[in-house]
Amino acid sequence: MQQYKKRTHTCGQLRASDIRKQVTLTGWVDKRRNLGGLIFVDLRDRHGITQIAFEPDRSGACYELAKSLRSEFVISVSGSVVSRPEGQANKSMPTGEIDVEATELAILNKAETPPFPIEDSIDVTEDLRLKYRYLDLRRPIVQKNLLVRHRAYQVARSYFDRNGFIEIETPILMKSTPEGARDYLVPSRIHHGKFYALPQSPQTYKQILMVAGFDRYFQIVKCFRDEDLRADRQPEFTQIDVEMSFVDENDVLAITEGAIKEMFGSVIGVDTPIPFPRMTHKEAMEQFGSDKPDTRFEMKVGIFSEVVAESGFRVFSEAVKNGGIVAGICAPGAATYSRSQLDGLTDLAKTLGAGGLVYLKLQGDSIECSASKFVTAEETKKIAEALKAKSGDLVLIITGPWQKALTILGSLRLEMANRLNLIPHNKWNFLWVTDFPLLEFSEEDKRFVAVHHPFTSPKLEDIPLLDKDPAKARARAYDLVLNGTEIAGGSIRIHDSALQTKMFGLLGINEAEAKMKFGFLLEAFKYGAPPHGGIAFGFDRIVMYMTGSKSIRDVIAFPKTTSAMSLMDDSPSSVDLKQLEELHIRIV
Amino acid sequence: MQQYKKRTHTCGQLRASDIRKQVTLTGWVDKRRNLGGLIFVDLRDRHGITQIAFEPDRSGACYELAKSLRSEFVISVSGSVVSRPEGQANKSMPTGEIDVEATELAILNKAETPPFPIEDSIDVTEDLRLKYRYLDLRRPIVQKNLLVRHRAYQVARSYFDRNGFIEIETPILMKSTPEGARDYLVPSRIHHGKFYALPQSPQTYKQILMVAGFDRYFQIVKCFRDEDLRADRQPEFTQIDVEMSFVDENDVLAITEGAIKEMFGSVIGVDTPIPFPRMTHKEAMEQFGSDKPDTRFEMKVGIFSEVVAESGFRVFSEAVKNGGIVAGICAPGAATYSRSQLDGLTDLAKTLGAGGLVYLKLQGDSIECSASKFVTAEETKKIAEALKAKSGDLVLIITGPWQKALTILGSLRLEMANRLNLIPHNKWNFLWVTDFPLLEFSEEDKRFVAVHHPFTSPKLEDIPLLDKDPAKARARAYDLVLNGTEIAGGSIRIHDSALQTKMFGLLGINEAEAKMKFGFLLEAFKYGAPPHGGIAFGFDRIVMYMTGSKSIRDVIAFPKTTSAMSLMDDSPSSVDLKQLEELHIRIV
Repeated sequence: MQQYKKRTHTCGQLRASDIRKQVTLTGWVDKRRNLGGLIFVDLRDRHGITQIAFEPDRSGACYELAKSLRSEFVISVSGSVVSRPEGQANKSMPTGEIDVEATELAILNKAETPPFPIEDSIDVTEDLRLKYRYLDLRRPIVQKNLLVRHRAYQVARSYFDRNGFIEIETPILMKSTPEGARDYLVPSRIHHGKFYALPQSPQTYKQILMVAGFDRYFQIVKCFRDEDLRADRQPEFTQIDVEMSFVDENDVLAITEGAIKEMFGSVIGVDTPIPFPRMTHKEAMEQFGSDKPDTRFEMKVGIFSEVVAESGFRVFSEAVKNGGIVAGICAPGAATYSRSQLDGLTDLAKTLGAGGLVYLKLQGDSIECSASKFVTAEETKKIAEALKAKSGDLVLIITGPWQKALTILGSLRLEMANRLNLIPHNKWNFLWVTDFPLLEFSEEDKRFVAVHHPFTSPKLEDIPLLDKDPAKARARAYDLVLNGTEIAGGSIRIHDSALQTKMFGLLGINEAEAKMKFGFLLEAFKYGAPPHGGIAFGFDRIVMYMTGSKSIRDVIAFPKTTSAMSLMDDSPSSVDLKQLEELHIRIV
Repeated sequence: MQQYKKRTHTCGQLRASDIRKQVTLTGWVDKRRNLGGLIFVDLRDRHGITQIAFEPDRSGACYELAKSLRSEFVISVSGSVVSRPEGQANKSMPTGEIDVEATELAILNKAETPPFPIEDSIDVTEDLRLKYRYLDLRRPIVQKNLLVRHRAYQVARSYFDRNGFIEIETPILMKSTPEGARDYLVPSRIHHGKFYALPQSPQTYKQILMVAGFDRYFQIVKCFRDEDLRADRQPEFTQIDVEMSFVDENDVLAITEGAIKEMFGSVIGVDTPIPFPRMTHKEAMEQFGSDKPDTRFEMKVGIFSEVVAESGFRVFSEAVKNGGIVAGICAPGAATYSRSQLDGLTDLAKTLGAGGLVYLKLQGDSIECSASKFVTAEETKKIAEALKAKSGDLVLIITGPWQKALTILGSLRLEMANRLNLIPHNKWNFLWVTDFPLLEFSEEDKRFVAVHHPFTSPKLEDIPLLDKDPAKARARAYDLVLNGTEIAGGSIRIHDSALQTKMFGLLGINEAEAKMKFGFLLEAFKYGAPPHGGIAFGFDRIVMYMTGSKSIRDVIAFPKTTSAMSLMDDSPSSVDLKQLEELHIRIV
């Protein structure tokens, strides 16, 4: 450890206008080149790279010391800014017109050879990158991602602040929630045998804040979910959490649109025209086979049950008779698909839960049908017409219950779009999906579960359905979809304790359970709860889109693996038995 | 639940210039008054209060419904803005010149009678307020506190952003830290028998971010400490966390001063001249008996060991002989203290660990000494001179080891200042305390512990002391003190892995333990760590000062009690056995 000269400039700052200035720079040795009697060092910090020249004539000691420099050494260099020799300027770098001729050099810290080079393109496993995350984070592309993330925080907060939202922190040590099974638990040392839970979302607290009269609340907040992880999930993730009083759907959607427009505009310079298009859940399913449609390309689903309701092909007619549908998509230009390619698609459909896959190949005037033994030429023609298929196209047909058949078609649609390269990658298609079903029946639990969450209000006109036909009730819920990914979701909430109690009843949450789990919310509703609603944005995913990253791990400073481990610090880890004793727990 | 007319204005918005406008307001019934044939309602929201007039002539149905209104009902009211009758304007309210004459009224939600009135001054226990926190949060004073907090977040972030700091989120689920005994633990479901810890601070991560080259980092972040709680501590608390590369103490102090100046200036309009005064730890102890001196008043400690080194009073002379000190404070005008008041002070001193308390009363030319049998008149005179005591003053004298005697005097100083009402309450005395000792010897653990934390650098000139006399080594650590409370603290860190290893050795952390606990940090230091340092601000406490609150619970939306419970939602709470099974733990 030593005293050292402090920098006068960053490594991204010096220009031709600085020539003849005496400067000091600090940073990391990015590259060192020996050119005959001269040593060049690219000195790097977060702000850029400046080339340092060490000449034996100018400062012999300094030149000798420079010989010992290796990649990633931390140094402090003083010298004068000089113009690069004629023809050697590098126009592609902001600092490319100048060098710093070193007269003083101090090595602030040495470095071992890194396990991978500090460059954007590296060919190493993600595990190695995560273990040496501090080196991975030096790579310009990862730094850029986190700078975009930084800017996104600031722009989002400034927007909500300007729009009268109050930032309020909600507890991290909270009460276990209804979806408790996925809660991370924290044993209490003081209260024997009791636990806190980490929030899956601050849902109940933000509703309490509305009851408390804060009117407009926001927070960029960590949430936690202990689930078996998928590639794009993390055990802790960040959301922009928003709640508003005295509003309806249109107010929440408008505030959200403003936030998205400002974030994408200010942070990455992408203009997003608002308002965003809206589509009901039913429309989304029936046109795109998805509740988060990617609308960057067409290939819409067509339902033509009536065309084949009386078909001699029983797969078709029975599906219709059983209340299901017959529907398909038309993959343009895929009529050339080979038998084995088609078998592959059939296997895929089966993996997705289909009984099978029927296809039509349109070539010239002929239509070849995989079930031609049973389907008449008349029928295939009508199907092709229904889907506006033309010569060269491939039609894929699925039958079955509405939800299932459409979901399979939605997946096939995405698969075919990828195979046929139909997805334009420079589009930003935002879309609202509204009017979700309030409830869905869980075959596993043999009861209704909330599609959004138990606090979501039914549409006012559907309240009578709660007694008559709950499955038909629609929710005042909305999702914001970007290019086929949900990036925000919310709802107008129930603010009436009687309706909330009825909702718990429908969900099979009995009174004692409801009281234990969120009695405080029901209790709060008795003291004058305003109508309110809100939304939560998936912040990690939004930044992932903004930076064009493939994984949310690339926009999180210290992500965990898909098995919820931190490879850098090797957590979770074992702890002292003494600590467990204090917490009154034992490992089983 | 019903559709309702949405507001056109908030309850704090209408002025005389709005007269004759048709408006709709929503909010809570703050007060209802029946005045003969007229009903007045004060309608409240976060923005203010507007008086609504219901007249039977204007809208009979509306007037009839208004009769049923009770405090805290949530309503929507439409009508026209009218001038208040001559002489009835309320100049103390921004909306006091107008009424809204109601023509439409909708009750959006009823309310039970709250357990306490929604007013600033209420006479109820804090427990009741915390149980009904949603009602407590409706009180204007608590809303104001959280609005100040909101503004403080925005100003702080804007300041650090403008100064080139990057906001980066560090993990909440992290590795158990060296002070692990106070960690909250989170059992892993996936990794049997392993645990995450919640961060007591993001210390290691922010140092890693410096190694990664981010140069300047900040974050407003939740931290967690499972300690037996004191009145002004919370199990989860918020800090502004800051770290900088290629800096020394002066850089960190200057950035901090700028942040404080901007926060106090922009948020509450208090001008704080910078730079703040600085004092070494030794000076602070010897002048104020505290490492966080309250400098709003004088009554400095005086050490006069040499005056009494040869005293016949063995309490004095032995203390000096044993390497300790004899020191005192002079309480102005307290010579009138009665015997029982002085006995009380003696008891207090003993509670603080003193062997006893010697005092002098100065009245006219006479000095009365509590140990006059042993202390000569000559000596008492010299003591009085040393402390500049004059007639009417009371001198309190403590003997003992340096640290202990001074600390007791520091407490007596605060006690006397409170009793004598010497503390001016409109002052904002910021003060840096620097040059803390690096280590202190823990009698309990029979080893050195870090005064700040194990990553704090010794002063460069004191590095040789680490081998010779570690107790004498000073740290590159600094605390920012406001009116006698530490509101920020930090240090220049060790960035050299050899020195860090040596430091662990001094702290009795062996190699295996160091490797297990923060091997990743030592490892990171091998790949080019820049010199770096930082600071963390106690955000809750700063907002407490800004709002003039007596407790940090008054500036946290959902605080926990001193026994770490949330009375509103009754957490921590019991959880399903099934959940514990999944986590592989059992309650003992």
